[in-house]
Amino acid sequence: MRITVLAGGVGAARFLRGLVAAAPDAQVTVIGNTGDDITLHGLRVCPDLDTVMYTLGGGINSGQGWGRADESFTIRDELAAYGAGPAWFTLGDRDYATHILRTELLAAGRPLSEVTRVLCERWRPGVRLLPMTDDTVETHVTLKASAGHSGEGVAPVVHFQEWWVRLHAAVPAEAITPIGAGTATPGPGVLDAIAEADFVLFPPSNPVVSIGPILAIPGIREAAEAKTVVGVSGIIGGAPVRGMADACLAAIGVETSAAAVAAHYGPRLLSGWLVDDQDKAAADDPACAGIAIRAMPLYMRDVDSTASIARAAIELAQELA
Amino acid sequence: MRITVLAGGVGAARFLRGLVAAAPDAQVTVIGNTGDDITLHGLRVCPDLDTVMYTLGGGINSGQGWGRADESFTIRDELAAYGAGPAWFTLGDRDYATHILRTELLAAGRPLSEVTRVLCERWRPGVRLLPMTDDTVETHVTLKASAGHSGEGVAPVVHFQEWWVRLHAAVPAEAITPIGAGTATPGPGVLDAIAEADFVLFPPSNPVVSIGPILAIPGIREAAEAKTVVGVSGIIGGAPVRGMADACLAAIGVETSAAAVAAHYGPRLLSGWLVDDQDKAAADDPACAGIAIRAMPLYMRDVDSTASIARAAIELAQELA
Repeated sequence: MRITVLAGGVGAARFLRGLVAAAPDAQVTVIGNTGDDITLHGLRVCPDLDTVMYTLGGGINSGQGWGRADESFTIRDELAAYGAGPAWFTLGDRDYATHILRTELLAAGRPLSEVTRVLCERWRPGVRLLPMTDDTVETHVTLKASAGHSGEGVAPVVHFQEWWVRLHAAVPAEAITPIGAGTATPGPGVLDAIAEADFVLFPPSNPVVSIGPILAIPGIREAAEAKTVVGVSGIIGGAPVRGMADACLAAIGVETSAAAVAAHYGPRLLSGWLVDDQDKAAADDPACAGIAIRAMPLYMRDVDSTASIARAAIELAQELA
Repeated sequence: MRITVLAGGVGAARFLRGLVAAAPDAQVTVIGNTGDDITLHGLRVCPDLDTVMYTLGGGINSGQGWGRADESFTIRDELAAYGAGPAWFTLGDRDYATHILRTELLAAGRPLSEVTRVLCERWRPGVRLLPMTDDTVETHVTLKASAGHSGEGVAPVVHFQEWWVRLHAAVPAEAITPIGAGTATPGPGVLDAIAEADFVLFPPSNPVVSIGPILAIPGIREAAEAKTVVGVSGIIGGAPVRGMADACLAAIGVETSAAAVAAHYGPRLLSGWLVDDQDKAAADDPACAGIAIRAMPLYMRDVDSTASIARAAIELAQELA
């Protein structure tokens, strides 16, 4: 069985852990969002790729969901002693080593896909992890002019991470744009992985800033539309399970509900949609016409409960394929 | 009193600590060797500048003489887990932060002299620390063809650090060349610092790979020749006090003795030369004609004994000026 997954960070990584447990013999390819990537102190940081890699490779800080277990923060403290910011983005020492090596390899001319492969040789995540593109795509957020954030050292357009981490997405966004996505090329193997998959899964990742940038790369949405795609809702009972997806959905004029997100993807892309039991009314929502909706408990409490969700997604996909 | 010092790493830094103690009111400018600089994992490392900065700023691992006190080695261990070398050059986490920030600032287009000034804002070493040049100079070592090192993954020409740290200078050198020095320009303030000094001091630094590259930059030797220069011998009783200066001296055909090093600098450059009591015969050595030689205990055991040496160097310089 070949499964291709479009993935963001924490939610995707946790879902993937359940998927690997549910289908240990499946060949899983993960197409990772790189729109969150940021250069800090000259080092290239790929939060979503690393979260997937660390989680499946056993190196994650599992309580936090991102970053390395058993971290120390010497580099952060030393940089602060030099007065070098930004103070709002913290990386641990173990994590820094990954970014140092990645940046070294990128500077030597190796594309991100190859660098990711090299890093995964250590972590052996059990899936093939492909960046969505080797080109630079960075999600930027245009802040609402009326939000009263001027004079606080915040620009009208900020990197996604600045909006997410520094501003906690509390300043309303006017637009969220994956800069560079429109002219980017899918990374090596990405289109083939979709074309050759038995089906495609969307984990409960953020539809705007995680799945959105991946689909914005010319060719990827079209490739997915040719396949059976089953998604898992990251919205339960009108609120995101984790993160601030509501702020992202508001920016693109989509209601924060499982049904509205399914409608946002649309029946041309999405064949099936898993929602939580409390959102089962989505099945009767005319906005979701053409999408097969199944309800079940969707909180990923542990690997077992997550494996059940993954199993249901697989079954729905096989049924629809 | 204005004193300008041409400096290598550990020996120079320890001497400078004594100099600052001996002449707390003097304006001391240190012109630091950058020929040992190396790029590791994409990060620019300036061992001699950092050793001076950390030592005078109170951050040095004083037992070791280089690197930071209270170090941890998470980054090194993580890079090793990725299989990323080189294993022969170890940097600690605190030290890494300095190199990350330096590399970030250099990449932003700031010259090394300005970056060094920024780093020193934290360390407040009590001296003005100037890189010998903002241009890239790297000391390379040509290994003797007959030394039987081929097949061990060692190139015939290696970076100074590879020869020094990896090979422990045990493979004889045919030549030691500060690549780029001949076309480099003295860093901002360097020539003025020499011209405006009451006198110039050479600490017991390696004459070939520490003082040598500084003097190889067009204009610096000439500027020093116009001043009173007093040096402190790093060779005592026919052996280097620290390091492997004998291997360097052999490469340029100079005997490992206090007298031979003085003669190597020559009376045109060197006005006075402090030697250890056991080398007092140098005063009668015809090779040292024209150089005022004084003998005293030269081992830098602690700050007090080093301050005595510095005081003697100052007195000799004032006498000769």
